[in-house]
Amino acid sequence: MKPDIYYMKKALQQAEKASLIGEVPVGALLLLPDGSAFAEHNAPISQHDASAHAEMRVIRNACKASNNYRLTGSTLYVTLEPCTMCAGAIVHARIARIVYGAAEPKTGAVESLYQLLSDQRLNHQTEVVSGMLAEESSTLLKQFFKARRKKRKTNNIQ
Amino acid sequence: MKPDIYYMKKALQQAEKASLIGEVPVGALLLLPDGSAFAEHNAPISQHDASAHAEMRVIRNACKASNNYRLTGSTLYVTLEPCTMCAGAIVHARIARIVYGAAEPKTGAVESLYQLLSDQRLNHQTEVVSGMLAEESSTLLKQFFKARRKKRKTNNIQ
Repeated sequence: MKPDIYYMKKALQQAEKASLIGEVPVGALLLLPDGSAFAEHNAPISQHDASAHAEMRVIRNACKASNNYRLTGSTLYVTLEPCTMCAGAIVHARIARIVYGAAEPKTGAVESLYQLLSDQRLNHQTEVVSGMLAEESSTLLKQFFKARRKKRKTNNIQ
Repeated sequence: MKPDIYYMKKALQQAEKASLIGEVPVGALLLLPDGSAFAEHNAPISQHDASAHAEMRVIRNACKASNNYRLTGSTLYVTLEPCTMCAGAIVHARIARIVYGAAEPKTGAVESLYQLLSDQRLNHQTEVVSGMLAEESSTLLKQFFKARRKKRKTNNIQ
């Protein structure tokens, strides 16, 4: 296995791809214990799927590829703190460890609004590393929303 | 539109289908404002997908069919209180109303462990009706787990 930052950079590349097609730039990579990896970006608009966050897409792809609804021993890298939906899926898939970038104060369900991955009432807990490449992830998101606001403003004037 | 109980019975029929293939018996039906309906059962094991809860499957199917990642004005019927993953997807899809059957004290994220659908910090709230056909839903779940325990015990003896 390579160091965490190697995989996080791959997740960040996915976030950049999302930005290019007008999706909120979030990227994820799921690493299975056998070394195989699955990378995707956020894509609810283009996929016509409210659940198509980057995390959900890599979890689904990895489950399909391994013919298993559990991903025991795997690590999920994601550029932004997961929401309640994605944190729930992380628990269901029994993911061992997540590494994330920027915090999400409005919807984050790992440390910000909720702490779902350490909730002892649930039947699985996940190790958490936060803040990796947070600055890069955050800058990408800020640029995306700034450009979108500018575009909307221009459209309103015309 | 027909009364809620009509759709909840359809959701319960889906739960029964799940039970027959060895999946935890939970069923859901999503009703769009135009009257079209999507029904599915819980299927993580058979679909090789940790996220394949009944609610997620109807949300995905309805999004795909309507070419939209939002399901504004829709109602979700589900036989068991949704978990954090499904409650998160309900918020993302902007579902207007949910009607559910039995409470889920161990993982429920609508009223039991968390109250995600009424969290004012999130950007959408969903109207909730609970307890509809709760007894029927609960009986189905109890029978399923009782049969599974019996089967496991028999297998251990042999």
